[in-house]
Amino acid sequence: MFGVTILGNNSALPAYDRHPTAQVVTLNDQLLLIDCGEGTQTQLSKYKIRRSKINHILISHLHGDHYFGLPGLITSMGLLGREHDLHVYAPAALETILHLQLKAGNTDLPFALHFHALENFEDILIDEKKFSVQLFTTEHRVRCWGFIIKEKKMPRKINKEVVQQYAIPASYYESLQRGEAYTNKAGYTFKNEVLTIPNKAAKSYVYCADTRYVEKNTSICKQATLLYHETTYLQNCEHKAALRFHSTSIQAGTFAANAGAHKLIIGHFSSKYECLDEFLTETQTVFPNTELALEGVTFLV
Amino acid sequence: MFGVTILGNNSALPAYDRHPTAQVVTLNDQLLLIDCGEGTQTQLSKYKIRRSKINHILISHLHGDHYFGLPGLITSMGLLGREHDLHVYAPAALETILHLQLKAGNTDLPFALHFHALENFEDILIDEKKFSVQLFTTEHRVRCWGFIIKEKKMPRKINKEVVQQYAIPASYYESLQRGEAYTNKAGYTFKNEVLTIPNKAAKSYVYCADTRYVEKNTSICKQATLLYHETTYLQNCEHKAALRFHSTSIQAGTFAANAGAHKLIIGHFSSKYECLDEFLTETQTVFPNTELALEGVTFLV
Repeated sequence: MFGVTILGNNSALPAYDRHPTAQVVTLNDQLLLIDCGEGTQTQLSKYKIRRSKINHILISHLHGDHYFGLPGLITSMGLLGREHDLHVYAPAALETILHLQLKAGNTDLPFALHFHALENFEDILIDEKKFSVQLFTTEHRVRCWGFIIKEKKMPRKINKEVVQQYAIPASYYESLQRGEAYTNKAGYTFKNEVLTIPNKAAKSYVYCADTRYVEKNTSICKQATLLYHETTYLQNCEHKAALRFHSTSIQAGTFAANAGAHKLIIGHFSSKYECLDEFLTETQTVFPNTELALEGVTFLV
Repeated sequence: MFGVTILGNNSALPAYDRHPTAQVVTLNDQLLLIDCGEGTQTQLSKYKIRRSKINHILISHLHGDHYFGLPGLITSMGLLGREHDLHVYAPAALETILHLQLKAGNTDLPFALHFHALENFEDILIDEKKFSVQLFTTEHRVRCWGFIIKEKKMPRKINKEVVQQYAIPASYYESLQRGEAYTNKAGYTFKNEVLTIPNKAAKSYVYCADTRYVEKNTSICKQATLLYHETTYLQNCEHKAALRFHSTSIQAGTFAANAGAHKLIIGHFSSKYECLDEFLTETQTVFPNTELALEGVTFLV
């Protein structure tokens, strides 16, 4: 299972029971939290997502609607007796703020909190056995990062019928999965592609954070299986969007098309819009395979 | 109108749709916010309380469940175009945290934010025409303050029948209201109490914040019209309450009785309790005029 659950899809001012930005990425048994607006811990409870399963929290930038829920979530994790490590990846200035908050509350967390400052463009931030997280920078009013969460390439699968037919010992299966050939005692070499079949392609989720339209990022995000792009405004507010370094529906759709994404989800809606239908119809004129990032919905990557 | 609206009545971990501590005190056209746990801005919207009317925010102490909603509320006030001054009264360490948060978000507030550090015991914190706010210290795991919000003593009322009977000129009414006597041209002096009647007594709301039972505070809080005292635990958790510098139902009731309060409201319930009925019945065994500080309810002082 590789999916994204939306906890908050609104921009800065909470409105119409929509919440500030937060998303949970599920990668098998791993949960990653992307951004953590005020109220994220309550949204996690509402959607029955276990806080204890979250080991990595990624914060894209330091506008409050993307991180004001973080100190509450961290202290709640402590009150719930968490003992295993937590990794927070965020702009450097957050480390001082968090430390001052913990100090002011005289809070000793019962777990290790590891802070990783977001730095260079295109850094590999997390490199785990089954997935990686890569950074890229967006263009916003403050320094802001997007995240590319990629499954690691899956090993090839053994073609059971064929290996049994040629009586290839099981001790060679691992090397076959890595793509190696096999030579039997008689000196005959079997090509790997005869003995194995390709596994399903590695998928990726790309989170574009808050940003204006950035053409060069389409190549970095190319062929995302699932792409999230903000659409704070409808197209008739293009000028306002530009002033505030945000994007419109048409710009998000154009970005997805130019990046060659398979599917697009859109969010970070301005609180001036009660109804979201037009966001979908406008974006779909450019990129048909678009959905609204509705809260509580899980999108499979 | 002098009343208190409860926005959050739960202790640190949000649970059962109860929220961390926040209360709004209404004093005619003035709104004061006491504490500001995560989600307070959403609770204000839910109960249709206008953020723009809040000019004073009092933060009792720096445990997150009493202030993690403050940066979000302040930045939202800015986004909504507030222009008039806002006064925040809180432990000194919060000033640095707020400034770092505003700086990290590159946020220029369109209004003046005045920070007042809570300092000495029994300081008069706010001294306005119609009310005052006085500090006292509670005993908690970090420095913590309670607040006494008092109406100013009302001027005496003119006894219209009597002043007309004796033909006392209207130009003397103001001095009569201040309690002065009146001497007419013939040299006859009317005592003030003949010409005026007492106005209604000045009322007070006392907020005891987070605290263990502190006997000496009963004299500071004496004869509160309405008293808020925390009851994080039921009486059978007295030991746990003591360890964490919190109070039980019986301790809150005893405090109200010893302070001679007219009425008690109780809150800051631990998230271990889903049902709150026992808090009420236990407290009422000691202080019958008690109510649960339920969210959304306004208690008249």
